[in-house]
Amino acid sequence: MRRALALAATPGVPLGPNPRVGCVLLSASGDVVAEGFHRGAGTPHAEADALARAGGAARGATAVVTLEPCNHTGRTGPCAQALVEAGVARVVFAQRDPNPVAAGGTTTLRAAGIDVLDGVLHDEAAHLNRAWTFGVRHGRPLVTWKFATSLDGRSAAADGTSRWISSLASRHDTHRLRAECDTMLVGTGTALLDDPALTVRDEHDRPVAHQPLRAVMGLRPLREGLKLRDASAETVHLETRDPSEALAMLYARGRRHVFLEGGPTLAAAFLAADLVDEVVTYVAPLLLGSGRSAVGDLGITTLADAVHLTPTDVTVLGEGADTNVRLTLTPQRPLAGTDQEDT
Amino acid sequence: MRRALALAATPGVPLGPNPRVGCVLLSASGDVVAEGFHRGAGTPHAEADALARAGGAARGATAVVTLEPCNHTGRTGPCAQALVEAGVARVVFAQRDPNPVAAGGTTTLRAAGIDVLDGVLHDEAAHLNRAWTFGVRHGRPLVTWKFATSLDGRSAAADGTSRWISSLASRHDTHRLRAECDTMLVGTGTALLDDPALTVRDEHDRPVAHQPLRAVMGLRPLREGLKLRDASAETVHLETRDPSEALAMLYARGRRHVFLEGGPTLAAAFLAADLVDEVVTYVAPLLLGSGRSAVGDLGITTLADAVHLTPTDVTVLGEGADTNVRLTLTPQRPLAGTDQEDT
Repeated sequence: MRRALALAATPGVPLGPNPRVGCVLLSASGDVVAEGFHRGAGTPHAEADALARAGGAARGATAVVTLEPCNHTGRTGPCAQALVEAGVARVVFAQRDPNPVAAGGTTTLRAAGIDVLDGVLHDEAAHLNRAWTFGVRHGRPLVTWKFATSLDGRSAAADGTSRWISSLASRHDTHRLRAECDTMLVGTGTALLDDPALTVRDEHDRPVAHQPLRAVMGLRPLREGLKLRDASAETVHLETRDPSEALAMLYARGRRHVFLEGGPTLAAAFLAADLVDEVVTYVAPLLLGSGRSAVGDLGITTLADAVHLTPTDVTVLGEGADTNVRLTLTPQRPLAGTDQEDT
Repeated sequence: MRRALALAATPGVPLGPNPRVGCVLLSASGDVVAEGFHRGAGTPHAEADALARAGGAARGATAVVTLEPCNHTGRTGPCAQALVEAGVARVVFAQRDPNPVAAGGTTTLRAAGIDVLDGVLHDEAAHLNRAWTFGVRHGRPLVTWKFATSLDGRSAAADGTSRWISSLASRHDTHRLRAECDTMLVGTGTALLDDPALTVRDEHDRPVAHQPLRAVMGLRPLREGLKLRDASAETVHLETRDPSEALAMLYARGRRHVFLEGGPTLAAAFLAADLVDEVVTYVAPLLLGSGRSAVGDLGITTLADAVHLTPTDVTVLGEGADTNVRLTLTPQRPLAGTDQEDT
């Protein structure tokens, strides 16, 4: 299953509306017969990919798949049926398919007399496809809001200077997280004022091969010459100021994981609309005393109404004077069906 | 030496202008002949205490002391001379005496033919007396500024509510840190507005036996009925708004370690005067979006002028939704002679 997960996570597979899936076919003696993985919408599913490579050798094999084989005819046929027809003897999978349209593969397989085992390395598989799973359940992209702040909650000094509040290690870490998403989102204010490139760069400051979509929301036009309008990555201007509408537009474009990097006003709008699913903050050992707050007015007047979050990870990045602390948190709210629930 | 350090740190020894010192006398065969520790200004030094208990058994013994034996006649005689007279054969100590008035004990001992070894468990001893050492070098108390903040740098909501931004574990931790200081300092603003008790309480919310001094600085009178004016601990009103003057008053009263718990204005005044030596902050997983900032205006307008600090410790307190992160930091500035320098 570890190999199947590694196949599913093959770098370069375009993130998008489909889950990442890997499949390994093993012979009765435990040898690898064939491997396959899904390469994005419109291409064969991982099981079909592996079966095609295995040919007749699939007969009697065990199929190890990261996601429950689908039971649904979309742009490709149902994998459960394909496994039955190939004569596979046993299917082991990690995550049950949360998509009601595609689920039911287990039933089909068992009805055909195939031995089915599920839940193997479930958590790893669920994490790999957490944005996709979230999308299936909520009909919108998962939103990760990232901000960098001084110890006293400032994201820029009084004159607007904000480079660099966070350390080099934090900035590298941010690029790593950006690469895990399929979309970076800012407001027109940030786009026009800060003129960010919003590309994912490696530790040598070189752009990586697969760039997430750059999305800018807001009504102000994006003038020529902005870095966001260069050819280094795709850019879309979402002409709305409504977070919910912006996410709907992105979802319709097959986007499943939005990395929100806007300023305090945009962050406040998403928080107020309860559309932030994960918060990542880099705390730098600085005091500013004044300047732009990390988050704008949320309409909260008393402590009891504060947005409460649960830290899921605290990591110290760098050392000495360059130490930053990264906190990853999830808002405390009744999420109807999160990844955790199907464990 | 560990035993000597434990004796030096005996709970209940009043913190004050004198160092904490412990002494163990060992016979040639390694048995404990006598133990002693210093109980505060005007009482015998640790070595004298141990020698008195040992009597004639001190002859030929090894004296293990946490601080270099003094060479100075103050309210008590010089310990180096007392050790010589008692016929001690060997002296092992941890921290060299930073006080020029009292130093020189090693020279006296060696001149008398006594074998002297220093630097044993130096760092532990230096930490135990770091406030005293700081005072000897700088002529003012060490200042630890503590604040609790939301993720976005707020210490209270817009309506002033601030109970409780930090978790129960953080509040217990704060009481532990208060107990390590000899003075808690707030401004008259906080005293009048929040009416804090400023006592050190244990985990069962009971006041501990030895309470630090409660100091309030500022020109406004402290009205009757304030908790600070009750009998649970000593309180002093420092009628000044100048941080430097307030610290001089406290130093003159024998105070060596001030725990600064004032509001953003007082904190900003100390920071602007470069009179904060250590920062302890409890970051709570909350977002407020508005409300009182943790620190007031520092006159900083651009990022390059930010107060830079070096984190010395990052600790996660509590778990789940009650997770707080405690950061301990020291300002990056040229401190003329800190504890670190005599390692």
